[in-house]
Amino acid sequence: MDDPDLHSLPGFRFSPTDEELIDDYLKPKITGNDNKNTRRLPVIDICKYEPWDLPSFARIPTKDKEWYYFTEQSLRHKKGNSKNRSTEKGFWKPTGTDRKIMSGGKVIGMKKTLVYHLGRSPKGEGTKYVIHEYRTTKEFDGKHPGQVGF
Amino acid sequence: MDDPDLHSLPGFRFSPTDEELIDDYLKPKITGNDNKNTRRLPVIDICKYEPWDLPSFARIPTKDKEWYYFTEQSLRHKKGNSKNRSTEKGFWKPTGTDRKIMSGGKVIGMKKTLVYHLGRSPKGEGTKYVIHEYRTTKEFDGKHPGQVGF
Repeated sequence: MDDPDLHSLPGFRFSPTDEELIDDYLKPKITGNDNKNTRRLPVIDICKYEPWDLPSFARIPTKDKEWYYFTEQSLRHKKGNSKNRSTEKGFWKPTGTDRKIMSGGKVIGMKKTLVYHLGRSPKGEGTKYVIHEYRTTKEFDGKHPGQVGF
Repeated sequence: MDDPDLHSLPGFRFSPTDEELIDDYLKPKITGNDNKNTRRLPVIDICKYEPWDLPSFARIPTKDKEWYYFTEQSLRHKKGNSKNRSTEKGFWKPTGTDRKIMSGGKVIGMKKTLVYHLGRSPKGEGTKYVIHEYRTTKEFDGKHPGQVGF
């Protein structure tokens, strides 16, 4: 990365690892250490929009069809223990099990995958839109009640 | 990409699309249009080495455990219609079916996935090492008998 010519190579782009997303973006954002890097990712309420409207908010060119955002898990989305991720026309439905994000042998975060369905739960029609939602682990969140995810 | 600050973002790295690998690297290489970009990827005979020795040849830092090389499909690896991809200690075994790489509605190349097995075919023990081998389509290769793949 100390070679400036590298940056002009075709194929050089924003393609962060899970670990970077947690350590370099999510943690600074949550702890009030916003900086020129974290400010590159827009903060939006994912559920206020339909998935096809989201790319217009992104400010970093990425690979294929992939975009990055912060979104607050506001209290109004909570319903008992589960979170309501409904949009006007559909909803984001979790799929599979959450995966641990490890760094130096420790769990630093979790990653959940959600698929957009048109309609209303428990019905609804699956689509090709997918979100990978990142969160920090409970131990970390405990000190910082504001939760932010991608 | 015209914003220089982007390049200093954590997570900015070499992460080419399939289309870029074919159009910006493989085609120039095959057609004698080697340039400062293509010269970044080492040319090695993949089968002269074991997979755990390959990373030391790479000259571009990439995401996780991913490296890029050119390798010639030399005639001596050909055995009838199939290619012999044996190393000293094992062999690269194709898995699944080859995938088309599209650009502007046209097939510009193919992608084959191979898994390294320790031992000798048809026996051998599967490992976690995987190669994605890119080649241009026949129409293109016809003009340029030298074949190069990643």
